[in-house]
Amino acid sequence: MMTLEEARALDAADPFASARARFAVPDGLIYLDGKSLGALPGATIDASRDTVERQWGERLIRSWGEGWMDAPARIGAKIAPLIGAKPNEVIVADSTSTNLFKLIVAALRHDPARSVVVSEAGNFPTDLHIAEGAAACVPGATLIAVPRDRLAEAIDGDTALVLLTHVHYKTAERFDMAAWTRRAHDAGALICWDLSHSAGAVPVDLGEADCAVGCGYKFLNGGPGAPAYLMVAARHQAAWANPISGWMGHAAPFAFTDAYAPGEGMERWRSGTPAMLSMNALEAGVDEMAGVDMTALFAKSAALFDILAAQGDAIGLECVTPREPTKRGSHIAFRHARAREIVDALIDRGVIGDFRDPDIMRFGLTPLYLSHEDIVRAATILAETLADFPRD
Amino acid sequence: MMTLEEARALDAADPFASARARFAVPDGLIYLDGKSLGALPGATIDASRDTVERQWGERLIRSWGEGWMDAPARIGAKIAPLIGAKPNEVIVADSTSTNLFKLIVAALRHDPARSVVVSEAGNFPTDLHIAEGAAACVPGATLIAVPRDRLAEAIDGDTALVLLTHVHYKTAERFDMAAWTRRAHDAGALICWDLSHSAGAVPVDLGEADCAVGCGYKFLNGGPGAPAYLMVAARHQAAWANPISGWMGHAAPFAFTDAYAPGEGMERWRSGTPAMLSMNALEAGVDEMAGVDMTALFAKSAALFDILAAQGDAIGLECVTPREPTKRGSHIAFRHARAREIVDALIDRGVIGDFRDPDIMRFGLTPLYLSHEDIVRAATILAETLADFPRD
Repeated sequence: MMTLEEARALDAADPFASARARFAVPDGLIYLDGKSLGALPGATIDASRDTVERQWGERLIRSWGEGWMDAPARIGAKIAPLIGAKPNEVIVADSTSTNLFKLIVAALRHDPARSVVVSEAGNFPTDLHIAEGAAACVPGATLIAVPRDRLAEAIDGDTALVLLTHVHYKTAERFDMAAWTRRAHDAGALICWDLSHSAGAVPVDLGEADCAVGCGYKFLNGGPGAPAYLMVAARHQAAWANPISGWMGHAAPFAFTDAYAPGEGMERWRSGTPAMLSMNALEAGVDEMAGVDMTALFAKSAALFDILAAQGDAIGLECVTPREPTKRGSHIAFRHARAREIVDALIDRGVIGDFRDPDIMRFGLTPLYLSHEDIVRAATILAETLADFPRD
Repeated sequence: MMTLEEARALDAADPFASARARFAVPDGLIYLDGKSLGALPGATIDASRDTVERQWGERLIRSWGEGWMDAPARIGAKIAPLIGAKPNEVIVADSTSTNLFKLIVAALRHDPARSVVVSEAGNFPTDLHIAEGAAACVPGATLIAVPRDRLAEAIDGDTALVLLTHVHYKTAERFDMAAWTRRAHDAGALICWDLSHSAGAVPVDLGEADCAVGCGYKFLNGGPGAPAYLMVAARHQAAWANPISGWMGHAAPFAFTDAYAPGEGMERWRSGTPAMLSMNALEAGVDEMAGVDMTALFAKSAALFDILAAQGDAIGLECVTPREPTKRGSHIAFRHARAREIVDALIDRGVIGDFRDPDIMRFGLTPLYLSHEDIVRAATILAETLADFPRD
């Protein structure tokens, strides 16, 4: 295993080392759960106080004309370069689940001759649950979820939409985005990517994809339950409609007309009034990603991965995450029959990872606020902890 | 018109006078727009700092088990007594628009023999827009919007749902909730009340109503774009399904199963992850309403109304709000051809009201943080301002 000295040498040469000071992670904690809830940027503390105390408290209703109304499109444009989309193709609104609902209904209405959503069994559950609910809103539509190795054969002339999560929430397996987008298009189907577990952590290029969603509270550091985003390729924007046709997506929200008329471009994907406290915190988090070289960031993630993977090998822990960097996201997952107890014991020792039923422990790798030294320390504590859980 | 001395005497005897100190309204401002965005409670400043800096920054992912996960039901139970519902009939989630969508789809599926949503032309636009979008998700369903005086005849054997806003956003007219609920039920229809413009301002008793929605950012002082709430009567909870069937509404969100199974009671009405910064601020706002006697609060609202109404009469301003207190909400609306300019001129003089197309100026009456003296001062400034806008 890497020594602390070697880790410190790598940290000394790390182009992201200075970013750690911009996050308010408590001293003494090794936080390996940024893929579930990103850490608090220091700038967000000031931004949130300003939102509450000045924008709301002092400016009151006037703030809607002083930045609030435009926030969904403004923040969407900042997320766009992180996912390979154009600034006018992304908007922030609602939750990932609600955005998935909107896009799946719209995609199922795209071509009346096609009625099936194809997704992966074991996908992040809300994607499947929402697809089920959305399909029930379009006559004749259904959801088919099959294991990854049978996905290709499931995509056929009935497929309206292929719905895939770029990086798997449990194993961190990553789909080849360009290849699967091409496969869907070759079959005449649309594709929607869920970027929740990849955007802000790995290089993402939506390329020819039709639409996408993603959450703000993981690698974008937007805060607990941060608003989510959605992307619709420019070529579909005029034809697709938002089924949750609320007033904020109206072409003229303050004309207060009875008849709905969809807004231009991505504006129509808004539904209700944006939750500004959460919205402004998301913006502060996204701002931390501005100008970050995602290829370099992921290279550091890969280096951190290798430290934990080597330790896992040394102590006989089964790693379920692909070893090839381009085939995975930014966390490492191990399988162990007593994973839940081990994760709890690690938390007691100041290393926060998490557990997923029935036997997976996950450790998130967030290179902006984790050092090589952090990971070497975590790896050591992992080995010490595992010694308390001998196999039968 | 009431003199300042008379106003001060009323303030001295006002049981709500001490509440003003609990809100951070800037000195020198007379804020008559609390029916659009409620003022900032002082307690919310501390609550928001705690949410960001301690709950997120220090406790990180652990906070989900320390109050975050239960917040939607916990805050819903606090809202319930303000609207005449049981604590287990209300949950906080998403926006008013999205909650309307969920309930309208569910109500349209309630009885396949009925397929029409009946609402009021000129209702708050998102209610009509969303009803249109929701109807498009249920085969055969349609929306009919008619003027108030033709509503009764529009409700018939085809009516699945009567969708009414308790207090009109523009005129402040208030429906007789019990009478219209009975009328809908007599016709075999369901009724959904939008309480956005009434809850927290006037006494509300949902009684036999089937379902309701309401927003958190007006009279509940929950902050800009605060999460909204929805109510489903206990008798419908087991049968009705949330079309936006996201993981947070699952019976076991962290079992991560592919098949959706709806949660118990109101839990199934959750969709995505709650936006905790906005959610916790809403709770602080709702806490300000705990134990407030709504009848006494509205009596003060009525006294404030009378001051502005008398001034309107004195200066020849057309009041479009009913004079009978039980027939209105908690704002007063005047019609004037130059309403927009007048509202702007008032803002320049420190009186914040708002304008609604084409010719309405509205002044919100929020008795927790407005004194009789505030209203007398506002009435004086209104008269002075109006003198600059002579009629042709």
